[in-house]
Amino acid sequence: MSLSEFDLIKQYLQKPFKDSPDIRCGIGDDAAVVTVPPGMELALSMDTLVAGVHFTGKTAPEDIGYKALAVNLSDLAAMGAEPRWATMSLTMPDSDPAWLEQFMTGFNTLAQEYSVILIGGDLSRGPLSITIQIHGWLPAGTAITRNGARADGLIYVSGTLGDAGLALKILANQASISGEHKMYVVNRLNRPRPRVDLGLALRHIATSAIDISDGLIADLGHILEASKTWALLNPDKLPLSDAMRCSDMTVENKWETAATSGDDYELCFTIPPDKKTVLENNKKIDCAITCIGKITHEEEIRWVRTDGVVYKPPSSGYRHF
Amino acid sequence: MSLSEFDLIKQYLQKPFKDSPDIRCGIGDDAAVVTVPPGMELALSMDTLVAGVHFTGKTAPEDIGYKALAVNLSDLAAMGAEPRWATMSLTMPDSDPAWLEQFMTGFNTLAQEYSVILIGGDLSRGPLSITIQIHGWLPAGTAITRNGARADGLIYVSGTLGDAGLALKILANQASISGEHKMYVVNRLNRPRPRVDLGLALRHIATSAIDISDGLIADLGHILEASKTWALLNPDKLPLSDAMRCSDMTVENKWETAATSGDDYELCFTIPPDKKTVLENNKKIDCAITCIGKITHEEEIRWVRTDGVVYKPPSSGYRHF
Repeated sequence: MSLSEFDLIKQYLQKPFKDSPDIRCGIGDDAAVVTVPPGMELALSMDTLVAGVHFTGKTAPEDIGYKALAVNLSDLAAMGAEPRWATMSLTMPDSDPAWLEQFMTGFNTLAQEYSVILIGGDLSRGPLSITIQIHGWLPAGTAITRNGARADGLIYVSGTLGDAGLALKILANQASISGEHKMYVVNRLNRPRPRVDLGLALRHIATSAIDISDGLIADLGHILEASKTWALLNPDKLPLSDAMRCSDMTVENKWETAATSGDDYELCFTIPPDKKTVLENNKKIDCAITCIGKITHEEEIRWVRTDGVVYKPPSSGYRHF
Repeated sequence: MSLSEFDLIKQYLQKPFKDSPDIRCGIGDDAAVVTVPPGMELALSMDTLVAGVHFTGKTAPEDIGYKALAVNLSDLAAMGAEPRWATMSLTMPDSDPAWLEQFMTGFNTLAQEYSVILIGGDLSRGPLSITIQIHGWLPAGTAITRNGARADGLIYVSGTLGDAGLALKILANQASISGEHKMYVVNRLNRPRPRVDLGLALRHIATSAIDISDGLIADLGHILEASKTWALLNPDKLPLSDAMRCSDMTVENKWETAATSGDDYELCFTIPPDKKTVLENNKKIDCAITCIGKITHEEEIRWVRTDGVVYKPPSSGYRHF
């Protein structure tokens, strides 16, 4: 069965499109044409997943479709933006309707949840890779950027850290846990939960934010660099899942995994100390948030345990090259 | 020499960014944040070039960078939109600063000409491929879509057709021309001229438009399908370059190349017959435009020569799968 690009687009990609007042042209013209509401700014982010790099031949097409959108939504979440439209460029070795249907099922699961509409894209022959650009909006001037961390600000992370990294170790037989916990962490790797609602709730509260795609140390490092500040962190405070706690790694290995492994897509953000109560009582926040340290001007990043013992993490996060 | 993603981004991709009132955040945060002026709609289009499919290992990195942006600008041109921002996802087998520098030289040549600012993107390891999304704006309601062709409308194309296809034939030793003409057509293949200024001049004149990326027959076919109309075309009117005229192909092969080969990135558009004078006297149009036929409701696409003899083109254009 060989379908042309146009047939493939019609059959699988055009489905999610529906009439919406902000979309003048969707899929099917040279360009999509959309409207950003008055007073809103447009936030946009592009991320690519490459076969053999970001997922393996064993990854289910549904999970790939889900994750390709999730990692993009995660970027919007870190800005405090509301997702709206997506474009997608899909490069496939050959026309494979069965793969494409499963891929789009995963994509659409998440797209529907966040009312994201696919408005355009491209389909090419070549090694499997997926590039998605996500577009959202936010009230002008409310974007949560990386450069707003200030000394004495509190550093928070959402959810639990290191689960995706633990999944990779387990899949590579470098760590082991029970079957139920394995299912949990593999799901965390393949179906990361973008923290969109948290990002929206952080508007006017957080002074800086980033999503943890390359590991806490690397990504918090971007905040610190952009804000020209430093940090004091407590490894005892790193939020670990039950699966991580029950794994056969040493506590230092658990901390290292939580602090340096990528692909978690939790948010790391800072708030002024006087916003702590407002933050922790915010009913719109639908996930755990944990204070793991504070911003300093000490010109070093220090890790100190609750009992005062210094901890030195051995590595710093995922490098793309 | 191995540079990390962050170093590569800083060194080569951040350069073109400059302060601009419509850009709140450019490269270097989780998402770019931009403003669309009041009364304007946002046009956006995404296109991917894959090594071995859209260009060969012999294509100069500068040409790849130029063309990756050109094919996207061409889509905006077909909508009548003014280009503004680009995002780029670049997938490379390894960190290659020399390649990237040349690639960006080609990209920036065209970006500067059209005041396009690179505001974000992604860099991944993997088989070489480039995805660019271009963003432009246009006064609300003025987008030139594919569905506005009406019976008796005149069909025009810009520039000359088939030059990129002729270049591919020459590179494959299936046709030959003199050295100077060869340089000309290879340049047409590698450095297509996006018809941005023509697209802007066609606002309020053209009723439909498309850029010819897959060949005239295929792309005009999209206009006819979207507009539910048909066409009467004259092969004698197909605009051919001197290079094409001087090639050793038969006249039928020249017509076929002009009508079916892709990669020309000229515009094909329709106008109401009473706009002919306005169009042809428009001083803002900076390239040749040629009327090649008219829209009909005959329920077939016919090709008839000036002397009344029917012509049947043998194939229909580039298929992506």
